[in-house]
Amino acid sequence: MQQQVKKDNLDINPLKELTTLLHDDMEEVNKHIIENMQSDIALIPKLAGYLINSGGKRIRPLLTLATTRLYGYEGSRPYGLSAAVEFIHTATLLHDDVVDKSEKRRGKIAANLVFGNKASVLVGDFLFSKSFQLMTKDGSIEILDILSNASAIIAQGEVLQLSATNNINITLEQYYEIIGSKTAALFAAATQIGPVIAGADKQAAKAMYDYGYYLGMAFQIADDILDYNSSKEAMGKNIGDDFREGKLTAPVIIALSKANEEERKFWKRTLQNLNQQDDDLEKAIKLINKHNALQETIKLARNFADKAIDAIEKAPNHKLKSLLKDIINYTIERNS
Amino acid sequence: MQQQVKKDNLDINPLKELTTLLHDDMEEVNKHIIENMQSDIALIPKLAGYLINSGGKRIRPLLTLATTRLYGYEGSRPYGLSAAVEFIHTATLLHDDVVDKSEKRRGKIAANLVFGNKASVLVGDFLFSKSFQLMTKDGSIEILDILSNASAIIAQGEVLQLSATNNINITLEQYYEIIGSKTAALFAAATQIGPVIAGADKQAAKAMYDYGYYLGMAFQIADDILDYNSSKEAMGKNIGDDFREGKLTAPVIIALSKANEEERKFWKRTLQNLNQQDDDLEKAIKLINKHNALQETIKLARNFADKAIDAIEKAPNHKLKSLLKDIINYTIERNS
Repeated sequence: MQQQVKKDNLDINPLKELTTLLHDDMEEVNKHIIENMQSDIALIPKLAGYLINSGGKRIRPLLTLATTRLYGYEGSRPYGLSAAVEFIHTATLLHDDVVDKSEKRRGKIAANLVFGNKASVLVGDFLFSKSFQLMTKDGSIEILDILSNASAIIAQGEVLQLSATNNINITLEQYYEIIGSKTAALFAAATQIGPVIAGADKQAAKAMYDYGYYLGMAFQIADDILDYNSSKEAMGKNIGDDFREGKLTAPVIIALSKANEEERKFWKRTLQNLNQQDDDLEKAIKLINKHNALQETIKLARNFADKAIDAIEKAPNHKLKSLLKDIINYTIERNS
Repeated sequence: MQQQVKKDNLDINPLKELTTLLHDDMEEVNKHIIENMQSDIALIPKLAGYLINSGGKRIRPLLTLATTRLYGYEGSRPYGLSAAVEFIHTATLLHDDVVDKSEKRRGKIAANLVFGNKASVLVGDFLFSKSFQLMTKDGSIEILDILSNASAIIAQGEVLQLSATNNINITLEQYYEIIGSKTAALFAAATQIGPVIAGADKQAAKAMYDYGYYLGMAFQIADDILDYNSSKEAMGKNIGDDFREGKLTAPVIIALSKANEEERKFWKRTLQNLNQQDDDLEKAIKLINKHNALQETIKLARNFADKAIDAIEKAPNHKLKSLLKDIINYTIERNS
């Protein structure tokens, strides 16, 4: 089946629009981020700043901010809490890069290769602690509950991903569990705390949890497509990272489900045994394309995106609502 | 000056006595530890259990429990919070072993060498998240504040230690800052939350903070002595670990302060340049002994121990008080 990839709205970037609309608020969030990564130990702000100032989109704190305002709260509470969300994410990235032996992150050489694995582990721990200090300062046990649960789920997702690496028998359901834990859980927590800060009801918190969760699923699936699709320059990390690590994502899982005997041998050699040659990534991409696996994967992302749209429809009317909706589509379309 | 090392009370182990006295309570703490390290991801309880069930003394949760009871609270709140304290410690150990490239921990091969660095980092993150879930469940913002501050300080101490590694110009004051952060801060938090749980006043919390802090300082200095003093079997980790890593601790800092030109060259080669030969550890121990540096180091530990004794004297009369005092001396004497 032919899958038509939309290219219409690519000039419009709703993330940038949201950042512009919430510019003054985001300045405050950034202040909280910068202030709270300071330490007398020079290596800490140096290493944390290397990653934090490297042009990340700050999508998670932006979502916390936007969902708080969406439910009508105009005070300063989301600043510290948005910074806390970003710190959990940054700590995870620092530990991920050690775990994954990544070479690049956000277009720069990964922090662990510049400062060493040791420093990356410990500065990650520092930022993680700081995130809990920020939540504690805010003082809401409900928010501490949401974010500490999310942190535990993220760690479990990372361990699950590690356990599933090099396993060519992984199912789509297992893949969903991994990305649901390692990615969607923090998106969900980031958007759920918005209405909680605003004092909205449980239905609102549930709707925003769903919005963040499904957005996170679509976001991660789109990211996994990029690893087999985009140019190095466009994505700021090396294409083929997942392939080289033997990390099975949707495009490969789908290609594997349609593989003939010989193709299965190829995936087994390259992903299970990690016995890879120079042109194997190219071959992998060819097999993925042969089975239309990228288009199939986009459909999976589209399904989650539709659920995210259903969830955001439940939000009250507000100028932010349509932008939060546009972000969903943008998340998928950026890979086309 | 000759330093007489006390050997009188070595048969009596006040830690064991305390564990016996609080046996039923500690069973509950252990239940909380075991329950909260469970996960559907099999690798998590497997790896966490490998370290947690390896015969650690559980000194930190024991201290939380004891200081809570000392101030007259008899309920169940310290169970979860003691487990939280132990999880922060366990997470730190898991990350430490990755950072330090340790070969042994508690007499067993270090977890990272059995399960891999990746798994150790991620399971550490899981336990760290779990500790905050336990605190959140308890619901005291004051305790969350104490323990999240301690966590941030520990991470800073670890980074400071990393930055100071291979620096033969480190001063005793800098060494105190490192061990104060990486070790004493968690002891202090563990003992401070006792009176806080019990609803005692600020003076009580301050006294128990001081008790834990100075006990932690004495404990770490004694531990650093062991690395140049004890037999492998007695301590369950390799003697000479600090030396091999170029980690400067009190015995070496003191020996360095009295070193002649040639000795300084030796320390520079072995600890700064990490250019070490087979018999260098032996030589190092000889130099340390030549300058009476272990005895001098014991005196430093003794000073902190005396401050811990001053602090525990402020506690109310209770059968636990004398045991908490005895632990101070035991901490120092175990190295003799």
